[in-house]
Order: sequence, then C-alpha cells, then structure tokens
Amino acid sequence: MRLEDIHSPEDLKLVPVEELENLALQIRQTIMQTVADNGGHLSSNLGVVELTIALHRVFDSPKDKIIFDVGHQCYAHKLLTGRNKDFCTLRRFGGISGFPKKEESDHDIYETGHASTALSAALGLARARDLKKEDYHVVVVVGDGALTGGMCYEALNDAGNRKTPLIVILNDNQMSISPNVGALNNYLSRMRLSKPYLSAKKGVSFVLSNIPFVGKRLYKRVQSFKNHIKNLFIKESYFTSLGFTYLGPIDGHDEQAIEELLSKAKRKKEPVLLHIVTTKGAGYGPAEAAPDRMHGTPPFSLKDGCAKHKQSPPSFSKALGEKLVELAEKDNRVVGISAAMMDSTGIGALYEKYPERAFDVGIAEEHAAVLAAGLATGGLKPYLAVYDTFMQRAMDQLIVDIALQNLPVTMCLDRGGIGGEDGPTHHGVFGTALFRAVPNTVLLAPRSVEEFKQMLDYSLKANQPVIIRYAKAEGKLQQELPKPVFKVGNWENLKTGKDLMFISYGRMVDECLAACTLLKDKGIDAGVINASSLKPLDLKIIKNISESNIPYIVVEEVQLQGGLGSAIAEMSVKENFVKPLDIFALPDSFTKHGDRASLLKQLGLDCKSIAERAAKLYGEKHA
Amino acid sequence: MRLEDIHSPEDLKLVPVEELENLALQIRQTIMQTVADNGGHLSSNLGVVELTIALHRVFDSPKDKIIFDVGHQCYAHKLLTGRNKDFCTLRRFGGISGFPKKEESDHDIYETGHASTALSAALGLARARDLKKEDYHVVVVVGDGALTGGMCYEALNDAGNRKTPLIVILNDNQMSISPNVGALNNYLSRMRLSKPYLSAKKGVSFVLSNIPFVGKRLYKRVQSFKNHIKNLFIKESYFTSLGFTYLGPIDGHDEQAIEELLSKAKRKKEPVLLHIVTTKGAGYGPAEAAPDRMHGTPPFSLKDGCAKHKQSPPSFSKALGEKLVELAEKDNRVVGISAAMMDSTGIGALYEKYPERAFDVGIAEEHAAVLAAGLATGGLKPYLAVYDTFMQRAMDQLIVDIALQNLPVTMCLDRGGIGGEDGPTHHGVFGTALFRAVPNTVLLAPRSVEEFKQMLDYSLKANQPVIIRYAKAEGKLQQELPKPVFKVGNWENLKTGKDLMFISYGRMVDECLAACTLLKDKGIDAGVINASSLKPLDLKIIKNISESNIPYIVVEEVQLQGGLGSAIAEMSVKENFVKPLDIFALPDSFTKHGDRASLLKQLGLDCKSIAERAAKLYGEKHA
Repeated sequence: MRLEDIHSPEDLKLVPVEELENLALQIRQTIMQTVADNGGHLSSNLGVVELTIALHRVFDSPKDKIIFDVGHQCYAHKLLTGRNKDFCTLRRFGGISGFPKKEESDHDIYETGHASTALSAALGLARARDLKKEDYHVVVVVGDGALTGGMCYEALNDAGNRKTPLIVILNDNQMSISPNVGALNNYLSRMRLSKPYLSAKKGVSFVLSNIPFVGKRLYKRVQSFKNHIKNLFIKESYFTSLGFTYLGPIDGHDEQAIEELLSKAKRKKEPVLLHIVTTKGAGYGPAEAAPDRMHGTPPFSLKDGCAKHKQSPPSFSKALGEKLVELAEKDNRVVGISAAMMDSTGIGALYEKYPERAFDVGIAEEHAAVLAAGLATGGLKPYLAVYDTFMQRAMDQLIVDIALQNLPVTMCLDRGGIGGEDGPTHHGVFGTALFRAVPNTVLLAPRSVEEFKQMLDYSLKANQPVIIRYAKAEGKLQQELPKPVFKVGNWENLKTGKDLMFISYGRMVDECLAACTLLKDKGIDAGVINASSLKPLDLKIIKNISESNIPYIVVEEVQLQGGLGSAIAEMSVKENFVKPLDIFALPDSFTKHGDRASLLKQLGLDCKSIAERAAKLYGEKHA
Repeated sequence: MRLEDIHSPEDLKLVPVEELENLALQIRQTIMQTVADNGGHLSSNLGVVELTIALHRVFDSPKDKIIFDVGHQCYAHKLLTGRNKDFCTLRRFGGISGFPKKEESDHDIYETGHASTALSAALGLARARDLKKEDYHVVVVVGDGALTGGMCYEALNDAGNRKTPLIVILNDNQMSISPNVGALNNYLSRMRLSKPYLSAKKGVSFVLSNIPFVGKRLYKRVQSFKNHIKNLFIKESYFTSLGFTYLGPIDGHDEQAIEELLSKAKRKKEPVLLHIVTTKGAGYGPAEAAPDRMHGTPPFSLKDGCAKHKQSPPSFSKALGEKLVELAEKDNRVVGISAAMMDSTGIGALYEKYPERAFDVGIAEEHAAVLAAGLATGGLKPYLAVYDTFMQRAMDQLIVDIALQNLPVTMCLDRGGIGGEDGPTHHGVFGTALFRAVPNTVLLAPRSVEEFKQMLDYSLKANQPVIIRYAKAEGKLQQELPKPVFKVGNWENLKTGKDLMFISYGRMVDECLAACTLLKDKGIDAGVINASSLKPLDLKIIKNISESNIPYIVVEEVQLQGGLGSAIAEMSVKENFVKPLDIFALPDSFTKHGDRASLLKQLGLDCKSIAERAAKLYGEKHA
C-alpha cells in the first residue's frame, strides 16, 4: 500500500498488518524529505509514527477525538488524514500548518502549540461527551517533557478525582526540547528500568537501510510488556496516586503491541494512562544521535543532517549566552534560568561554564518566574530566558511576585515579533501590550545584538525588573548604522527627516530605514527614531516632535492594542502633545504562519508597504 | 507571659513550655477580636497558631527564612514578630496589611497573595543561599488547597531533582477556600487514615471556655506520629516519588510535637516535607463549623459569628449564580467552572441545582481555562468564574486556547477594580489592559447587576469568547438611573452635558454621575457615557463626541497603561478623532490596601476629586 493511496483513517484500517512496517517507512521518508526541504519539527515526529498508525487503526477519528499535546508531532497524523498531497507545503505561507488546525481537517479537533494543555482540553471534551450522553473516545498524546508543566498535573488531578473516562498516552521519549529535567523524570527512568519492561527481548527490524544512517538504532528494540500483574511499584505509582489506571510501559515502536494496548484501554470506562517508550528521531541516524538539535530544524541535508544554510545574521540567543558568561565571570550574583530551552535561549552557554549557576526547570514558566523572584530575594541577579510568547504563561507571576516586590530579575524574551513558520501560537506579538502594563518594570527592545549587549550591561546594575524583548536574529541590515549607545529612557535619533518621522523598535527599525530610502525617491524626507526603551518612554523626544509639528508614525511588529503606538497616544493625551499621524502595527486578529517576508508584506509592514502607506498619509495631510 | 510582652521571636523562645497553651489562647483571642472588628481571614489563621509558635521557637527568623504560601494565614506570625501593638489596624487604610509585607518587617521575607507560589520562591532562596555559601534554613508553609495548583508541582519536581535542602510544611486542613477537590486530596485523606496517625490517643485540651462556642471541637485531638519506621505506603508516596523525604502526618495543634518534628527536619540536608494536620478555624466554634464561610469574612459578632452588617448592595456573584441557574434551565449546554471559589463566585448556586454541570478544579486557573476550551470544543457553553486578578494566571491559555480557536467560553471576572482591604495582590486593575489586547474577544464591564444579567443573556448567544469584568457589588447609587439596555458595541448615554463628557464603565459610572452634580454647582454642564462594551468600542459615539467638539475625559478604575483611555486614544489616532482631554485612571504603580473610599480619594477617583480635576482642566481649556 502506497502512502498516497491513503486518504483517510478508513483506508489505513484496510492495510494488511504485514504492510504496516513499509507504510511507516514511507511516512518517515516523507517527513524527513519535507522537513529537510521546509524546516520543521523532526525528532518528535519520527518518534510517533507507529503510535499514530496504531491510533488511527484502533480509533475512529474524527468521531473519536485525538489531541496531540504541543502539536508539533502531528505530521504522521496529517499524512494519514488526507493531507499527504499538500504535505510539501508544510509551514509555508498559504500552505498547511506545522500544528493541528481545525480549518485544515475535521481530524484536527483541538489546536495546540504551547505545551501541557492537551490533558485539560481532552478532559473538557470527555465531560462534554458525558453530559451530552454521546459515545466516543477521547485520546490525548502527551510527551514526558510536557508533563513537567504544572497544568498537566492540574488536569490529571481533576480527571482522577471525577474519574472521567479518558485515554492518556504518555509518550515517554526521555527528552523534551532540552534533555528532560525534574524529579518526575527520575521516576520515569526507574519505571523504564522496572522488570517487566527490561525482560522484553523481541526486536522488530525496520527496512530503512536504503536511507543513509537510517535504521541502525532501531534494532535496540524491546518487546511490549505482556499483561503481567502489575507489581507493587507500579500499583502505587505516581499516576495511580492521582486516580489513573496505569498500563505499560511498552515499546512505542511496536505497532501491533500499541494496537493491543489501545484496544484494551478502549474497553475501560475510567481514566487510563498508557506509558509508551519511544525514541526521538527514530529511523534517522542524525536525529537519533542529536534529537535536541533536530527537534526544530531549518532546512537540512538528508545525507548528514547538517543545516543547508548557516544562519548568517547574528543571533540574539547566542549573544545572550556569551554575554551572560561574561557577566557571570565578573559578578558572582549572576544566575540563569531556562524553561526547557537551554540551548535555544542561550542559557546553555552559561550552564557549560557554570553548571551550578544555570537552572533548567522544565516546561514550567510560572515556576521559573517565581524561582527567579526567590533567587533575587536571596541576593542574586537572575536572568530568566524564555520565548516572548511563553512568558504569557507567567503574566501573574511577573505582576504579583516580581514587579510588586520590585525584584531585580531580568527577563530575556526571545522570538519577540512575528515568529514565522510556527504560526500564531509562536508569534511574540502580545509582549509590548502585556508587559508595559506592569508597574515597576523597565521594558526594552534592542534593534541589534550590539544594543542588546548594552542593555544587558545596564540590567546588571538595574535594581528593578527589566524585560528585554528581541527577535530571533538581527534583520538583514539595509544600510550601515551608527553604533548604538543605549541609555534607558533615551531614544536614538537614527535619521532625521523634515517631512515625516517613524518611531519604531527592534527589527522594524531596519524596515523603516529602508522605507525612508523609498520615500526619498518620492521627494519625502523621512527619518527614524529607535524607541528601544519602551518603558520608560523618551518624553523629551516625543515633546520635541510634537512641538516641531513634524507628523510621526509609530511602526511596530506587535498587536496594535496596547503597543508602543498606544503608549505614545496615551502620552499625547496626558501631556497634551500632538498625537501620532498613524500607528502601523498588527491588526486585532491572529496572524497565520509563513515566512517572515510574506507575512510582513501581508501585514503592510515590509519597507515597501510602509513607504506606500506613509506616502499616502503624507499626501492626504498636504492635499 | 502576656502576648503584648512578646516583641520578637527571641522573647517567644523564653516562654516556658507550660505557658504556651495560654499564649496560643491569647493569640486566638486577638485574631478573633481583630477580625471581628476589621474583617479578614479567620479560619486559616486560627488553624496555624501552634504551628506558628513552634516555627518561631525552633527557627531563627529573620536569619532563617519563613514563607507563607498565599500569605493570608500570617496573623499569628505578625503578632509574634513585633506587630502586636499595631495589629488593631489590620487591613485598614494606612494600617498593617493582611498579607506579608517586606516594608512592615524583616520577618516578612517574601510577599505572597496568590496561591501556590511559595515553594518556587523558597527554592530560589535556598539555591541563592547555597550559591552564596550562606547558612540558614528556608521553611515554607503551604496548605493542601494550594497544592492543587500546578506551580507547586513544578517546584516540588525541581526541588526534588536537584535535592536542594528545603523544609516544606504541608498544612493539611482539608479545605482550601472551597472544600478541597482533586485526586491528590483523596490521596491525602488516605494518608490521614493511615495507621500511625490513627493510633494516636493523647488529647490536648485548651482553656478556651471563656469564649462562647470556643474550644469544644479541640478535644478531638490525635497525637503525633512517633518516629515509626515509615511503612511501604508512605515510602512510595506521592512526595517521595518527587524526591522529598516525607515526615508525618502529625497533629498540627500539638505544639510540642511540631517543635520536635521541626527540629528533626532542621538537621536534614535535603528537601523534606512535613505533613501536619490542622483544623481550620480551630478554637472558635462558628469558624470550625463553617470554615468556608469564615475563610474571609467581613466584620462579625464574636458571639455567633454572624456578619455585623449584611451587605446591602446587590452582589454580582449572587446574580451570576441566579442567572446561570436560569440559563442552565433553558439551555442544557450551560456549564460552570470555578477555581476553588464555588461560593464566592456564584458557581456554587449552579452546583446546588446541577452538580454534574459545575466543576470546581481547585486553585488551577490555567487548567480551568483550557478545560473550558475543551468543554466548548465538545459543544457546551462554559462559564468560567474567577476573580479578575486570578485570571492573570490564565493569560496564555486565554490567548492560545480560547481566543485563537474562537471558542464560545464566557469568562466572568469578579472583583474587577479596586479590591479594597486585601491590597495590591487582589486589586483587579490590569484586566482591561491585558484582556483587550486579545483578538476575537468581546470585553464587557457592567455598571449594575441588571446590566450584568443582560450581558449574560447576550453571552449565551455569542459565538466567540466573552469576558465580563465586574466589581464585588453595585456601588451605592447616588441617583436613580434608567434601566440599562445593553447591546454589544453600543454605549449608553446616561446623561448629556454640553460642556464636558465623562466616558466611564463599571462602578466608576456612578462616581462620574455624582461628579456631574458637583460640577453643576460650579456652572459646568457635564454628562456621562457608560462604555460598558470595552471591546468592541462604540465608534459612533466617539465620532459624535469628537465632531461635536465637546471635551471628554475617560475615567476608569484600572491601570492607565492600556486601559479604555488608551483604547480611545488609539482610536483617535486611527480614525483621526479629537483625542480625550484627559484620562483619570490608576497611576503606573501598585495601589496599597485599605477601604475603597480612602483608596479612591487617594487616587483622585472619588466623585469629589473627579469633579475638582475636571473643573480645573475645563478652566484651563477656557482660560
């Protein structure tokens, strides 16, 4: 059976058992080829191929509801639910998403993107089913990494309490994005070493030898746990103490064993947890060898797993790592915290040098924020590095723990602005609105790595919470810029203009400068101010612009509601300044996935659109 | 030894053991009298008297750090750390706070207010201590209710993993604010029923009979668990699986037993969890009998525990309960969710009538929000009722789960605006800024219970997320108002004014109307618009005002940054309207505790201040 002939789970159910191995091979090849071309999540998707096949053979999606936690491991699911043909457009602008999306398919029942939510959502679905006296199964696939998030525990606690029938599959791949941390992980390791799992012998071989590096590691396979009477250890396990019936652990690459266990779980009328053990990157040597690096990957060469294009612009996370090591060397109060993203945030570099001064707390942003508050209370200078969009998780802790106590915690928020191919759950576009509402904080956004480093120097001396939001990497500079001289509350006049001024920050500064060049051709002399200090604002500059009566436009890569434009508009009311001519920002809707250039164009925020919109406004004003 | 002679823990350490019972009695009497006079948290404070005495005798605060989770159980701690004399000012404007406050005392090392944060903070402190090679103990008191919050689990997981020495006292009083929910609670119940705890016999009697109802229940005492070899059940317990050494359970009203256990814990160089069992409201009959009702109480009569002044203005939470029952009767899709606050939010009324359609998930706002998203995905109409300030916890889930999927979840956010005596952690003053930044949502704020009910009718038909923010109760109406006719996106012109207009919402509408009366005396004809639809705005009315050139002032009881004033200022930029004359809102700082009237006056938001500020601005404009 060819993968392209499977248009729905109904087709999959008809595939003879002996052909499933080959089907899994085709799925892996398709995933590898597509991710090699488009970039995307690799390791996690290769790990759940057999599980996904088994799920769609045992259950009847979309009648039965299957929810993937985080959602980045849904590629096999997409391939088996009618999206094989479009799969080559994965993550591309206008193409299919790398996450479950309801508008794509009825089989994507619930959209995920941030970790640890699926259990709660599944519980809600299961309760809706019971109240409506409907008859279907709710199955949720959650990784051991996501289990480090407290929400999972809240949901397990709630589910176990009311005994709501629900099937939870714990995909234990011994990794989240960073190698897994936490006491629970130690516990799971003990489970994996428990007798029934180790007594397994049978190895299933894959026919993957036609792809270099593929298959070799798959022989280290262990057989499924065959219905032994649960030993005391498992009976009193973590999950049973929360009210779940526990089944497993079994080999997550033995498709038939999984089918057997799923069928068993299907018959139970209670919350059930199936523990399956998978290998991240299974079937592709480079991904198995470096599942962390190949978790989310840019386009790469299938031959050796190496990235096709080395990222050329300087990266902010790399700069953070370097700078933190430098600061830590001269000031022993400096410590770093990451929420399961040691390397992608740069905290990993600090850990390399000072392992006792860098903490990876798992996917637990709330705890990370309050841990930082505690470290600061104890006299240290904590640097909390998370993605801008994930910091939304610690909004309350930022307000009540860090800001109210005015603690000197520095929050380094990566991936601020349009995130690109990961889509709406990963765009960092709410940060300005949310964080600037919090008293006692300083909110910054550097236009370059150089300015970022100066901000970090500043933060070391600051005696209050400092939040720095920045993009993944510097923009491709359109022109040589002067070396920044950052000072809090002071904006930088990058280019004067006598007809029009742009006030912007972060990577948008660069688009504005390019827009100035385009406007010059239309005879409009426009300038740019780098408003890298979002809070406090530079009152002096706004006052000057207001008094000079040069129209000014605020340009930013975040939601319009509550952004810098809004802050300046407020200021214009409070101080009776001339208000901005316009605010160019994201509209009050969610922005889809795609490459940054296409998205900016769509949003009217690329330099060409900025120039056109500004010229039009200027014309109207002088008409 | 008299309580007034104890000025610090040093004095306490000198009290002979045989006098401790009497001291505990004095502490209870002081707490009861003060809360009866001022209102406050009663049950939880009466439950930890012996524990607090033992803590300050065994440890050396402030060198040793004691953190109270939630913090509302810190009254005995305050009385024993030099604040006995000022205790009568508890929760009053300018008086001492009902929560730990660093500015009050060095013994308040970390400020708490929202549940489940203390473990993370304590872990941070302990790690700072170890990195700085300092020598002190970190002790954290956490209730079993707070343990339903996922953050606790994240912190336990992290602490157990790195084996950071830390002493956690699980104050198991079998209640959070609502009777405790969740599978973990069932588990704790089993622990309490375990053999060592039940085998205890000794009863300690209290000399409390001079206070009516007091003392009777205290005889049901059980003795401490005397160093039995831990049985298998406890060895493989929940907490040990997370890496903690577990001690207990013991009787939390046996002061000497607690001292003994604390001394033992003090010697351990690892994370330790002490399980102590207390009675909420211990020592005061009415509180023991109804610990839920007397958790947070207005001033009451000591004789019978009844509130002194029945709340006269109609309460929004009561209205929510009534209306939800009404909606649930006619539409079987309606379900309710509460996060450990069934009665104070009104969800309890729904539970009474339809127990299977109301869910209390524990102190777990993140899970609550995603559970609601799941229920909506399953075709139901969930109503999530939490306090405005606690919804900050579910910011990310609101954005990524509810709003991105445009799910018809209605969020009823109680205690919006200045919260009063509970202080900065409980003021609901960030809601407008945070929630209006989220696409796909409708954001509402009723001026009256009547309007609230109309909004709930609207929400039933709405096919998108609806957020309703409201105060605890209606304001004391200064004048008869017309019956509201709520329509989304339509503001209500309550009073026309040819000189000046106020745009306001919620309880502030009433202050503005009263300000109009005061302004009339000064010859200024001011009017009021009720902007109860915060999103979408009423573009039509703003346009009219702008065109009629009547100056207008936005008045709101939230932070200025990102509030309605900010929204209107944005709008004035985008649509080229005349901008507001001013925005009267909370400054960019945290507002302290106190009675509402004093706080409004301090903030310049009582009717008199509003009138004065408006008259001054009007004068300047026409000077």
